[in-house]
Amino acid sequence: MDTYGLKEFLTNVKSGLISIEEAAEKIKHLAYQDLGFAKVDLHRNIRKGFPEVVYCAGKTVEQVVAILKVLTSKYKNILATRAVKETFLEVKKEIPIAQYHEVPKLITIQQEKQQLTGCILVVCAGTSDLPVAEEAAITAEMMGNRVERLYDVGVAGIHRLLLNEEKLYAARVIIVVAGMEGALASVVGGLVDKPVIAVPTSVGYGASFNGLAALLCMLNSCASGVTVVNIDNGFGAGYAAALINKLEEK
Amino acid sequence: MDTYGLKEFLTNVKSGLISIEEAAEKIKHLAYQDLGFAKVDLHRNIRKGFPEVVYCAGKTVEQVVAILKVLTSKYKNILATRAVKETFLEVKKEIPIAQYHEVPKLITIQQEKQQLTGCILVVCAGTSDLPVAEEAAITAEMMGNRVERLYDVGVAGIHRLLLNEEKLYAARVIIVVAGMEGALASVVGGLVDKPVIAVPTSVGYGASFNGLAALLCMLNSCASGVTVVNIDNGFGAGYAAALINKLEEK
Amino acid sequence: MDTYGLKEFLTNVKSGLISIEEAAEKIKHLAYQDLGFAKVDLHRNIRKGFPEVVYCAGKTVEQVVAILKVLTSKYKNILATRAVKETFLEVKKEIPIAQYHEVPKLITIQQEKQQLTGCILVVCAGTSDLPVAEEAAITAEMMGNRVERLYDVGVAGIHRLLLNEEKLYAARVIIVVAGMEGALASVVGGLVDKPVIAVPTSVGYGASFNGLAALLCMLNSCASGVTVVNIDNGFGAGYAAALINKLEEK
Amino acid sequence: MDTYGLKEFLTNVKSGLISIEEAAEKIKHLAYQDLGFAKVDLHRNIRKGFPEVVYCAGKTVEQVVAILKVLTSKYKNILATRAVKETFLEVKKEIPIAQYHEVPKLITIQQEKQQLTGCILVVCAGTSDLPVAEEAAITAEMMGNRVERLYDVGVAGIHRLLLNEEKLYAARVIIVVAGMEGALASVVGGLVDKPVIAVPTSVGYGASFNGLAALLCMLNSCASGVTVVNIDNGFGAGYAAALINKLEEK
Amino acid sequence: MDTYGLKEFLTNVKSGLISIEEAAEKIKHLAYQDLGFAKVDLHRNIRKGFPEVVYCAGKTVEQVVAILKVLTSKYKNILATRAVKETFLEVKKEIPIAQYHEVPKLITIQQEKQQLTGCILVVCAGTSDLPVAEEAAITAEMMGNRVERLYDVGVAGIHRLLLNEEKLYAARVIIVVAGMEGALASVVGGLVDKPVIAVPTSVGYGASFNGLAALLCMLNSCASGVTVVNIDNGFGAGYAAALINKLEEK
Amino acid sequence: MDTYGLKEFLTNVKSGLISIEEAAEKIKHLAYQDLGFAKVDLHRNIRKGFPEVVYCAGKTVEQVVAILKVLTSKYKNILATRAVKETFLEVKKEIPIAQYHEVPKLITIQQEKQQLTGCILVVCAGTSDLPVAEEAAITAEMMGNRVERLYDVGVAGIHRLLLNEEKLYAARVIIVVAGMEGALASVVGGLVDKPVIAVPTSVGYGASFNGLAALLCMLNSCASGVTVVNIDNGFGAGYAAALINKLEEK
Amino acid sequence: MDTYGLKEFLTNVKSGLISIEEAAEKIKHLAYQDLGFAKVDLHRNIRKGFPEVVYCAGKTVEQVVAILKVLTSKYKNILATRAVKETFLEVKKEIPIAQYHEVPKLITIQQEKQQLTGCILVVCAGTSDLPVAEEAAITAEMMGNRVERLYDVGVAGIHRLLLNEEKLYAARVIIVVAGMEGALASVVGGLVDKPVIAVPTSVGYGASFNGLAALLCMLNSCASGVTVVNIDNGFGAGYAAALINKLEEK
Amino acid sequence: MDTYGLKEFLTNVKSGLISIEEAAEKIKHLAYQDLGFAKVDLHRNIRKGFPEVVYCAGKTVEQVVAILKVLTSKYKNILATRAVKETFLEVKKEIPIAQYHEVPKLITIQQEKQQLTGCILVVCAGTSDLPVAEEAAITAEMMGNRVERLYDVGVAGIHRLLLNEEKLYAARVIIVVAGMEGALASVVGGLVDKPVIAVPTSVGYGASFNGLAALLCMLNSCASGVTVVNIDNGFGAGYAAALINKLEEK
Repeated sequence: MDTYGLKEFLTNVKSGLISIEEAAEKIKHLAYQDLGFAKVDLHRNIRKGFPEVVYCAGKTVEQVVAILKVLTSKYKNILATRAVKETFLEVKKEIPIAQYHEVPKLITIQQEKQQLTGCILVVCAGTSDLPVAEEAAITAEMMGNRVERLYDVGVAGIHRLLLNEEKLYAARVIIVVAGMEGALASVVGGLVDKPVIAVPTSVGYGASFNGLAALLCMLNSCASGVTVVNIDNGFGAGYAAALINKLEEK
Repeated sequence: MDTYGLKEFLTNVKSGLISIEEAAEKIKHLAYQDLGFAKVDLHRNIRKGFPEVVYCAGKTVEQVVAILKVLTSKYKNILATRAVKETFLEVKKEIPIAQYHEVPKLITIQQEKQQLTGCILVVCAGTSDLPVAEEAAITAEMMGNRVERLYDVGVAGIHRLLLNEEKLYAARVIIVVAGMEGALASVVGGLVDKPVIAVPTSVGYGASFNGLAALLCMLNSCASGVTVVNIDNGFGAGYAAALINKLEEK
Repeated sequence: MDTYGLKEFLTNVKSGLISIEEAAEKIKHLAYQDLGFAKVDLHRNIRKGFPEVVYCAGKTVEQVVAILKVLTSKYKNILATRAVKETFLEVKKEIPIAQYHEVPKLITIQQEKQQLTGCILVVCAGTSDLPVAEEAAITAEMMGNRVERLYDVGVAGIHRLLLNEEKLYAARVIIVVAGMEGALASVVGGLVDKPVIAVPTSVGYGASFNGLAALLCMLNSCASGVTVVNIDNGFGAGYAAALINKLEEK
Repeated sequence: MDTYGLKEFLTNVKSGLISIEEAAEKIKHLAYQDLGFAKVDLHRNIRKGFPEVVYCAGKTVEQVVAILKVLTSKYKNILATRAVKETFLEVKKEIPIAQYHEVPKLITIQQEKQQLTGCILVVCAGTSDLPVAEEAAITAEMMGNRVERLYDVGVAGIHRLLLNEEKLYAARVIIVVAGMEGALASVVGGLVDKPVIAVPTSVGYGASFNGLAALLCMLNSCASGVTVVNIDNGFGAGYAAALINKLEEK
Repeated sequence: MDTYGLKEFLTNVKSGLISIEEAAEKIKHLAYQDLGFAKVDLHRNIRKGFPEVVYCAGKTVEQVVAILKVLTSKYKNILATRAVKETFLEVKKEIPIAQYHEVPKLITIQQEKQQLTGCILVVCAGTSDLPVAEEAAITAEMMGNRVERLYDVGVAGIHRLLLNEEKLYAARVIIVVAGMEGALASVVGGLVDKPVIAVPTSVGYGASFNGLAALLCMLNSCASGVTVVNIDNGFGAGYAAALINKLEEK
Repeated sequence: MDTYGLKEFLTNVKSGLISIEEAAEKIKHLAYQDLGFAKVDLHRNIRKGFPEVVYCAGKTVEQVVAILKVLTSKYKNILATRAVKETFLEVKKEIPIAQYHEVPKLITIQQEKQQLTGCILVVCAGTSDLPVAEEAAITAEMMGNRVERLYDVGVAGIHRLLLNEEKLYAARVIIVVAGMEGALASVVGGLVDKPVIAVPTSVGYGASFNGLAALLCMLNSCASGVTVVNIDNGFGAGYAAALINKLEEK
Repeated sequence: MDTYGLKEFLTNVKSGLISIEEAAEKIKHLAYQDLGFAKVDLHRNIRKGFPEVVYCAGKTVEQVVAILKVLTSKYKNILATRAVKETFLEVKKEIPIAQYHEVPKLITIQQEKQQLTGCILVVCAGTSDLPVAEEAAITAEMMGNRVERLYDVGVAGIHRLLLNEEKLYAARVIIVVAGMEGALASVVGGLVDKPVIAVPTSVGYGASFNGLAALLCMLNSCASGVTVVNIDNGFGAGYAAALINKLEEK
Repeated sequence: MDTYGLKEFLTNVKSGLISIEEAAEKIKHLAYQDLGFAKVDLHRNIRKGFPEVVYCAGKTVEQVVAILKVLTSKYKNILATRAVKETFLEVKKEIPIAQYHEVPKLITIQQEKQQLTGCILVVCAGTSDLPVAEEAAITAEMMGNRVERLYDVGVAGIHRLLLNEEKLYAARVIIVVAGMEGALASVVGGLVDKPVIAVPTSVGYGASFNGLAALLCMLNSCASGVTVVNIDNGFGAGYAAALINKLEEK
């Protein structure tokens, strides 16, 4: 139910076309659908502008399929993250339109083509950071944003970044994905006057402590305007960038 | 030197009004002013849209005064953070227009009144979080943004937040400041469809580990669209929120 | 041996019906049964009101079977935690009445049906937290407590919790199970005037550090009346809730 | 406003004695009183059964005094924690009935003598743990609970505990306060069949890491029925124990 | 070469029976045998009273076999730790007298039966701690010490320990092996007037952080006379206990 | 009361010279003396061979004085650790025989001269480690052990240690005190065949993390026979070394 | 392109033999080759004196092969680190001259034999440290340096090091590789007057925390002139040692 | 005693001019001078090429003065680190030639002017890093190296670094001093083909954890050739750089 439907519904309640009892029941269904093991959040599209995104890790294949079927019946475009291939194959049986993105392990279901607007730039430091970078990029695209990519431009060879400065200037929001020491976020943050969202990755070994080094580095960035999400949380960065990029449309 | 001056300067170089030698010298001064102990970044206003902000911790009073004098001679509005009162009193002697904000320990120098636009909401969980919340709010105001405040609405009494929901919906960007367990960021993030910047504070004791608990809580927020800055970094949150709020003006 | 048998035994010692030598030997057996690799605590039912619960992790299948056989011969209702399916199948051969609960990996042996009293509510934040939530719920049920469940009501969609507030008010004790940032414990704790036991889970990734984020969040809860158990320790929460719920019966 | 007053108020709204407009205004005041820097939670007594407790750390003396004055005008018995003596002396000027407890740094305001019921036992390991133990004990007493104390019975001389076992058996709820390795919580937890709330303290040095060692020890207790609160959080333990001890009265 | 052989050798050097050149060469071989990938320490028996113990983790099977063959050719009794079964089977082919201890994963080679003297008591908290406890016990036995075992006497059922107090008093040195919260070390340490060596184990989950909780607990023991070795280091505890137990023989 | 007095007392109970009622009362006093804030452990001398040692940190001056007066009235030789000078001056007023050791901040009360036996060697790495080294040395001396000192022989100039090897060979037990990286413990442990007790100190800065680096280093010592106590715990090392050195006398 | 080719190119640009447009295009190719998923840094040989080294972990086999083919077409000698055998076998198909080093998991491609100069000594503490030590040694050799090895000389048997002191004195730079407590770096650093690069390894268990103990130990070395690289980073140590050893040739 | 004197001394021993007894005594004095609380390492100049440097933290003023007097009587140029002004003033009384460097808190004693050779560049990120940068620079100068400084060129304004690239290329060794996220080390390391020694500083707040963030960042540098010293260890970096810079002179 989108915002328009919501208003119509409320008008009908007011006018008495829908009784209080019917309305109460409907609101419950509007709010969530109870599958026993899960209360699928059907209200989220109203609050957040995008339906609930399914986090597949720790859920059984059956649970993922059931939740996606509910969501697909209500909304146009659906996203599921951290899905292994086996999960996708089962989803595919029930929802043939579903697509799998192998590198970022995403399932996307697009029932309506959407116009991509604005510009989000996803920058990453090394080839090993690609899964996280692509999770960010596709998340943003699924939410209707135009996305540019600038990959493998880590500070060990900083000229690769400087030779592409015009891409930095052309974007409205920038996502920087980097593992190891994560210094790329500070360098980019020092060059631009737009919001930079930094994503530390678990790429590295030893004292990278599975991404802790990059996380701390990014949190302590001496460049202003840099905010940070959880280690390997490409989805979160893509989502936040989308909210920012879409601001002007409101 | 603002963007306009920069263009004029470049036109003059092109036309020969300014010689290559003069231009080279001028560019160096445009880039930074070397005080020996500091290279004041005079180029930052061009790159970032706001002059260098002075971080006073770890600098001597003399160093702060010298840097502020250089900046004041070049720019209209200047900000210095983490300044103790003694530092301010010395600054005041040299720059009488300087003002001190006791709670967030900020020095502001405003040589020109500016129009405040857009809307940034600063939410904080408890009275003890005020210094950080005010650092965020005043930073954003100094950068030309309209700021609303909603203080002391932590989740221990969540009705205080819910009774003020309309403030959440009226804002373009929201900054959430919270110590202890920092749960407020997730609750706010779950209610709105706009960017939320979370600032963990060092308020708490024991296993709060000086803000680490709140930091981890916020990084792991189950609500989408939440990004995080360093512990007690009100300035960073205010700056990032300003960049987001100003996006539409570009 | 229950409390009644204990008193009879002591009366017999006093009256001389049982000699000192016989009594000493009997007390040793009353205290524990020595299997060489284990001293099965047969005194625990007297001290704690429930027989020793077998923690299967790190024990061989043979050890688990042997300990369960001793316990089954002495007590009505037995619980074993963290048992893989292979272990259960071997237990089943020796104790056919044993049952397996796949999600929480529990083995239960019920030789007598018991009356369930009071009310413990188990709340969990997401579907991935189910194994821990069920460990808590079944532990409490095995100890004779009535248990209600309210699942998948995390703060990312807080209306799912608020629409079920009456369940919170109906309970005597509440167990809150949550991973990621664990904010749900504070929100529930702020709404009710009864004991809340928080269980952090290892659900999450990156800076959740296998449940550390949720643990710290819960320990720093700004809501009063919240106490915490170890990460993923559904059993411990169920046990403590049972002791609280049963208090009035004493 | 207590529960009785609330019902009367609602009856008056229903009957029309109070208009909708008046009621709306009154509800806002019922919910919190806005002091600008703080929203004093006036609804908490209804939700939690005890008015908001003032955490003084990080608040100015003026803020503490203002909040306490609001609370004193509405409720009978008020508690403020982590108050230094200077704060108390200012409070005393405005609220002469206020009392100071030097060891646990508590301010109590008792405008009505209350009946103490049930039995909470506070056990502590060493003399250095007294401030935290007393914070727990007085919190529970302020909430109307009878409290027993058993101090300085750490496991280095375990006979001191065992010679007082009857105190353990007489209590309904037990709070165990211990620093250094915190082993006392497990030993007590192994002896009794009632809820044990463990409070780690920051007493110790070196690898105690300001209470982290005791905290981890208590979270990993092999004894069942032990739950844990934050380091040095005597208040939280006393509050939770009070909720448990009062359960039967509901 | 034992101490006696060393003295004879030196006498021969002094008397000229062995030339300086021959002696220099012999000393090098006396010190270590160079296998390229390893310098087997042949001097250790002289310095430490027991030949080099082989740590098998991280070594290839071929390396372990080669080192054990060198040691077996020089000394009577040899010990290898952390050996998987596959390694043992290859060792067995070359050194048929070798024996495998499955629980502690030790290989022992005894070419001469030795008299066991003194008394070391190995106490452990739970059945899951057995591998570490047996590593300690067999190490001490291999070094010629009499060893007693008291297993599964953790503080959750402290009567199991107290009913065996006479074993504590009969020992000269006590090794306490415990995981989870490791409280047993403090309880034992408080009861006896002899050296207690505490071994934390990685038994546990969640906030046990693979033994860190037990380690910190033991390091902060309020009982005097407790020293600690690395997590799961049964070998180190057995070795140190052996040095202490053997002191009187020197 | 020493062991002899204990036996006499028990004989008198058996013979009826002391009534059961008198005995029960006496046993309580034998076990501890209750000062309200402290239960002074009077049984410790029997269990541990040395009276309770007073840890002054976190106790008020009045508490320390009261406890020391009880102990002085019962035992010959008393030790108090971590006492600031102000505490000592108050103790001195009540117990004029008390002595203060400024470097290790110890108070000693010797009412009877004792024979020092055996040999404990205290080795330290640098001059900054002296306070901890002296705490170990004087503790051992107070317990009747002969102590040798070998100070400032850290591995940065390892010849200082090697030129004093004969001191290592002459000792029965060795205590190694070192901060920074703590490597000295491994080097000493590799040279001798006697128990080595390692004491990490908080000497250092940055990544020494107040002694954590030295602690971890010592716990991971590749030399066998090294056990470890808490950071800066000279007292614990001295106590454990004393127990070991005294073993042969039993 | 080497430095010579670069100068020729620039001369041609200056003289007009190469047009500005051609030059611009060529410079881009000179800087990096864009494979989509990677921007192979072709400028690194000019900046750093050695072509980009390929870090294989986290890259697909196809990505590694593609990058190595680009590099092999431009440079003589190529190095790839952390390559599993399967990766090598695919590389071998495309680049038959490639060689695999099983212990350190390196792929080397040598298309021109080079003169080895200077002297770098690689010292390691135990046999389990060999993979890291060999990674350092072969990296340095690939960069044209003569390398000596001194393996298995840990401080548990320090005579093995001292008997080889002349090797320490013969080297220009020393790399010390050690796990567990990592004390070897301090001992070597105290003996020599040349740069020592310490490499902590993840060899060990329990409180070694995967190399953290050795890392902290080395960072706190009391010996001067010791610098440190990441845990298990043999490559980084070999690279830095090569830069130092080659300094005189510039 | 320098190397020349050492050879003469040995020749005299060989020729009999110095008796064995005299020589043994002299060697002991050559090795160290025993002040009781310290063994001043007089052999270090021979081993390391520079006399022992006095670390003043944790030493009493009397100890520092005594050690410096011994060193001044034997060597030309002496360095003491981490000296507060009060210490210097006492040193000055005894050694009037001593000088104090207020920013880095160093005492230097130069009894002979020395030729400065080679080139070490000290780069620092911000003004607050100056104390550490100066500690590095003056240490290197005291050891006879020419030092250049490039201060306040952090990555937030990277043009300040890039405009000074020629300084990077002119140096033989580079020291990079940076706090907060420490990204500068990676950027510099990516630009040059010479050894880079990175010094993390404790400048920063919150999640910088007193320099831990910068330390981890530098250890994980994706640029090759970067080695790291302890947090705030300017001395160690200066010392290591000096050893490298002086290599060619040997």
